[in-house]
Amino acid sequence: MKQILVDMDGVLADIYAHLIAYEYRESGILLNQQELNGKLEGEAFPSFEKVVRSKGFFRTAPVMEYSVEGLNYLNNKYKVLIVSSATEFPDSLTEKLAWLNEHFPFISWKQMIFCGSKDSICGDIMIDDHIKNLGSFPGRKILYTQPQNALIQDPSLERVNTWQEIVGML
Amino acid sequence: MKQILVDMDGVLADIYAHLIAYEYRESGILLNQQELNGKLEGEAFPSFEKVVRSKGFFRTAPVMEYSVEGLNYLNNKYKVLIVSSATEFPDSLTEKLAWLNEHFPFISWKQMIFCGSKDSICGDIMIDDHIKNLGSFPGRKILYTQPQNALIQDPSLERVNTWQEIVGML
Repeated sequence: MKQILVDMDGVLADIYAHLIAYEYRESGILLNQQELNGKLEGEAFPSFEKVVRSKGFFRTAPVMEYSVEGLNYLNNKYKVLIVSSATEFPDSLTEKLAWLNEHFPFISWKQMIFCGSKDSICGDIMIDDHIKNLGSFPGRKILYTQPQNALIQDPSLERVNTWQEIVGML
Repeated sequence: MKQILVDMDGVLADIYAHLIAYEYRESGILLNQQELNGKLEGEAFPSFEKVVRSKGFFRTAPVMEYSVEGLNYLNNKYKVLIVSSATEFPDSLTEKLAWLNEHFPFISWKQMIFCGSKDSICGDIMIDDHIKNLGSFPGRKILYTQPQNALIQDPSLERVNTWQEIVGML
């Protein structure tokens, strides 16, 4: 059975919608999609560092549309591992675990990996929105579209825009 | 540079000394080394499930003798990753991260992996006290002696009893 590594922020969690809402609450700045394109989150959101370190941010992230059904489909067909960059933000660890337990109860604790870098996690397929994670991955690379990667054109990546597309191709 | 995966509980943290102290406090039972040999922790300690889920348990674990010097030596010679089974016990995640930051400040968040299973973490060398982690590892396997593994004889494993031995061989 093939092993598939699934990212959380920007793939299972709609972290952009969440960041936009938090930024507006924090600074009164309402960012739109076009202002975000091609910029990493830390560059695009003035309050990023404060927001991602605030208690409850990751615990209350909205779930990406159709991701529950999509991940459940993958979980029945592949060996799924949820691989999330989390150790940079200590509070995010237990929040992300609780978030997964709430929204994706069919994913067990045995399928969760919280790390700093994804370089050393083995798998056959990786779904991620960040080039830094997909770049060195030796398997099949699926790029989930988010504003920060919107301008990237790389033939080694398969770009998807929705979970429906993921289900259609895997 | 070779990559080395280093376990926390039973390798960096003296989890047996900690469990013995907690068990005594919890139930009044004072276990000795011989009663623990050959039994997994959950079998050996009557209060194990309660103790490992209690707030502060992992945060206050004692540091294994000479492990700070030993890990610092490895960190200058290898690519070190700290790989710890943690997702089964949600509170352990932030506690383990804080514990590493306090006692091993030369280890960055980029070098930490908290997971459920270690099967999918790549490396050349693994130091661990549990057969379940070393068993399927394809690289060099170093077994750190703890009561639960004391009776195991397996020629594919290199057994060590102290951090001084690790430094001497790596």
